[in-house]
Amino acid sequence: MTNRICRLFNIQYPIIQGGMIWCSGWELASAVSNSGGLGLIGAGSMYPEILREHIRKTKLATNNPFGVNIPLIYPDTEKLIEIIIEEGVKIVFTSAGNPKKWTKHLQDNGIKVAHVIANSKLVEKCEDAGVNAIVAEGFEAGGHNGFEETTTLTLIPKAREYTTLPLIAAGGIGNGRQMLSAMILGADAVQIGSRFVASNEASAHINFKTEVVKTQEGGTSLMLKKLIPVRLIKNEFQKIVEDAENKGASKEELAEILGRGRAKLGMFEGDLVNGELEIGQVASIINKIKPVKNIIDDIVLEYKVAREQVKHIKYDF
Amino acid sequence: MTNRICRLFNIQYPIIQGGMIWCSGWELASAVSNSGGLGLIGAGSMYPEILREHIRKTKLATNNPFGVNIPLIYPDTEKLIEIIIEEGVKIVFTSAGNPKKWTKHLQDNGIKVAHVIANSKLVEKCEDAGVNAIVAEGFEAGGHNGFEETTTLTLIPKAREYTTLPLIAAGGIGNGRQMLSAMILGADAVQIGSRFVASNEASAHINFKTEVVKTQEGGTSLMLKKLIPVRLIKNEFQKIVEDAENKGASKEELAEILGRGRAKLGMFEGDLVNGELEIGQVASIINKIKPVKNIIDDIVLEYKVAREQVKHIKYDF
Repeated sequence: MTNRICRLFNIQYPIIQGGMIWCSGWELASAVSNSGGLGLIGAGSMYPEILREHIRKTKLATNNPFGVNIPLIYPDTEKLIEIIIEEGVKIVFTSAGNPKKWTKHLQDNGIKVAHVIANSKLVEKCEDAGVNAIVAEGFEAGGHNGFEETTTLTLIPKAREYTTLPLIAAGGIGNGRQMLSAMILGADAVQIGSRFVASNEASAHINFKTEVVKTQEGGTSLMLKKLIPVRLIKNEFQKIVEDAENKGASKEELAEILGRGRAKLGMFEGDLVNGELEIGQVASIINKIKPVKNIIDDIVLEYKVAREQVKHIKYDF
Repeated sequence: MTNRICRLFNIQYPIIQGGMIWCSGWELASAVSNSGGLGLIGAGSMYPEILREHIRKTKLATNNPFGVNIPLIYPDTEKLIEIIIEEGVKIVFTSAGNPKKWTKHLQDNGIKVAHVIANSKLVEKCEDAGVNAIVAEGFEAGGHNGFEETTTLTLIPKAREYTTLPLIAAGGIGNGRQMLSAMILGADAVQIGSRFVASNEASAHINFKTEVVKTQEGGTSLMLKKLIPVRLIKNEFQKIVEDAENKGASKEELAEILGRGRAKLGMFEGDLVNGELEIGQVASIINKIKPVKNIIDDIVLEYKVAREQVKHIKYDF
């Protein structure tokens, strides 16, 4: 086992499932870990005791390594981290905040830490914080996104230039060819979100999963840039935001339109009209809800075929 | 020679230089063709008789194949095409318009035609028009851009799904690793623009070339989406547009801010304050103005190294 990310997390494939609010509970995380990848419980949409329940269920459902993703912007962060330590979780992915705040504390408790960035200028901050790995996520990703709109194709080579740490590419990756491409750009592994939303095991509402499968190229849009940019499916709610933005709506006006609970309404309760439906551009190549094991097996097979093909004469000149 | 694009255009490397207004005259096009790629004269910023002069000079400067890029939105299109035929040009890349309008006429005159799209749903239109190749250009590209903001990483696999025609990937490609990645996604070749702007032979003003080298990640932005989206370097002019857009400026107001001659002012006359400076996100990895031959040799070498490395054990699991 020589891939650095496989060694770091003790997993078979360098495929990490993105921690996603309302979509990635114990069932998805354990299925990914049982299929040779690294499953992550997405704590962003969980109250502390709910997270504890998901961690315990994941431990019962898999003997393989798994982790928890925590966006550092929520008020409950300290409590969530306390629970992670109490429950003996060994891997944490942090995002949307300063990696210096929690990395050492987590590592002192035997936890390996990866931090998510959307801007390679933040690589230095990750190195200073002493993280074990960096996730660099491009503009095409679903959900919360960077302000600079750097795509995976341009972000990964730059992040690689700045660090020798294990690097995980995210954004726009849903099949084996995209995975191999990301690794050629300099990543050691990939983090995949959207493709796992359309899985049997995701906790997303079936309406949302079905909508992901239906989403065509151009069917998502990066909105709410005056708040925190977020990529979502074009629907009635998104159209209201778009119209407001085109008219120059302020940050405050957008916050009011957004209100509270939009993401839960869309992704967990299945309201495709009024809900916020966070998904990446890669939805355009997703055409079936599948069991996690099939998703991972398909990606690995396609990766291997693509890797074989690179040797062929088409690539030679 | 088995690469389809190399066969189609009778070139050594599947590297095509993007036709760019104010940057790609006879000197750049001939240098690229002399270095084993396909050079394109960018007719978008040329009056008909200026184009004739550039074609004649290119013919004197290289014995290798070269072509002309024509954006189909300008009023002079018919006259430009007449000159291309009269002067015996053998390759034309069309963009920003309907490929059905000119493809057959050009082909009847012995010309091979490629058409540029930013949206894979237009593949069918290209096939119906009978083009010889398709260029699919992602969101990270400089200059005029698509409305749907699809990145190269997600666009190329989808375009490949829709067609068996020779496919050229554009947007975000400036080194050999990015080139190999694009080919793994399904492209037969790459079209490179920004990297060639920062060449000795580009007709861009030295101020602009120097600014491209200085541009960091996040230093470009997609603006003017209510007119035609265009990616440009963040400068004083861009800031005025951004502020207007944030306040909800209309299409008409934006057209007035843009005025006429902004691109020439910035890219050809070197006004970095008031000019429009069109470049792609890949500017972040460009750190030197180099001769075209070195640029191509470096890309090919890096491509070959990356291709060798794919065989190594890091990629095996």
